[in-house]
Amino acid sequence: MKFCSNCGAAVISKIPDGDHLPRFVCERCGVIHYKNPLLVLGCVPEWQGKILLCRRAIEPRLGFWTVPAGFMEIGETMQQAARRECFEEAEAEVEIGSLLAVVNVTHAGQVHVMFRARMLHPGFAAGPESLQVGLYEEDAIPWQDLAFPSGEFTLRRYFADRAAGREDHHFTELDRPLRR
Amino acid sequence: MKFCSNCGAAVISKIPDGDHLPRFVCERCGVIHYKNPLLVLGCVPEWQGKILLCRRAIEPRLGFWTVPAGFMEIGETMQQAARRECFEEAEAEVEIGSLLAVVNVTHAGQVHVMFRARMLHPGFAAGPESLQVGLYEEDAIPWQDLAFPSGEFTLRRYFADRAAGREDHHFTELDRPLRR
Repeated sequence: MKFCSNCGAAVISKIPDGDHLPRFVCERCGVIHYKNPLLVLGCVPEWQGKILLCRRAIEPRLGFWTVPAGFMEIGETMQQAARRECFEEAEAEVEIGSLLAVVNVTHAGQVHVMFRARMLHPGFAAGPESLQVGLYEEDAIPWQDLAFPSGEFTLRRYFADRAAGREDHHFTELDRPLRR
Repeated sequence: MKFCSNCGAAVISKIPDGDHLPRFVCERCGVIHYKNPLLVLGCVPEWQGKILLCRRAIEPRLGFWTVPAGFMEIGETMQQAARRECFEEAEAEVEIGSLLAVVNVTHAGQVHVMFRARMLHPGFAAGPESLQVGLYEEDAIPWQDLAFPSGEFTLRRYFADRAAGREDHHFTELDRPLRR
């Protein structure tokens, strides 16, 4: 941020009175501009034991595989966001189920929240952000070509819980960027 | 938002190509400015069966009661945010426990996430954003003077689960402002 979105003046970075972190502050109109973590919502869609995965058509991680997920919008619930992203990326209609994973991606200022999901019918297709979409058995998941560590965490916990007949939720923190 | 935070030009509101919602767009430098839901993190701190509540010293809802909660910051986990807010508002040190409530406050573009918490010692005091802080038995909770519906939902579920010997998590949606 370089300019005040309220009045257009240049902003400075400083710790406001009574605060404990530096913020972008406009010294002309007085507005303090906060930047807060973003929510990424996704799901693990299942159809007859297989999982729906998308191969990304956009950066970051173009060409790598992911569960359907994306930024939550204002006005929707977490569950609505997860369902919408699944339809946008994989053109699949799902019923959102139980909470599966909450990944604190602290280095990126994001929280990824993943749900279990049941596909309502076997229809799917690559949306504009996907190169390819497919249903995969557990032993066919492209573990070496997953786009994001949060997706790997989500899928590992999904299969472990499914094998154990549980539907737990799992927290983790990913505090550094992916290295390959 | 009236001005581009990247270049200072006036922004317009339009639906970008390939998008489905109106965004503030800068036609000079091309930046699209997204606005996404904010995360509010809080906890229900317990000491010997009593719950720690804060009476708000700031708007909104000045003078009304709340569990310790506030906006999550970049670089922290949900649990760290809940613990920090508890210390800032009530000067109480807690160990964050299980997930208790996820409240989709869609009308406000917020998600409130609340955890159970155990106070590490009986020390507490009003922080700068609180007029008063106290430990309350269930039957002394000021239900009619709670600041936010998400706090009431959180506390009701807390006591119901405690009575049943459970530690479940609960989702709800609050899609309209508080009316009193």
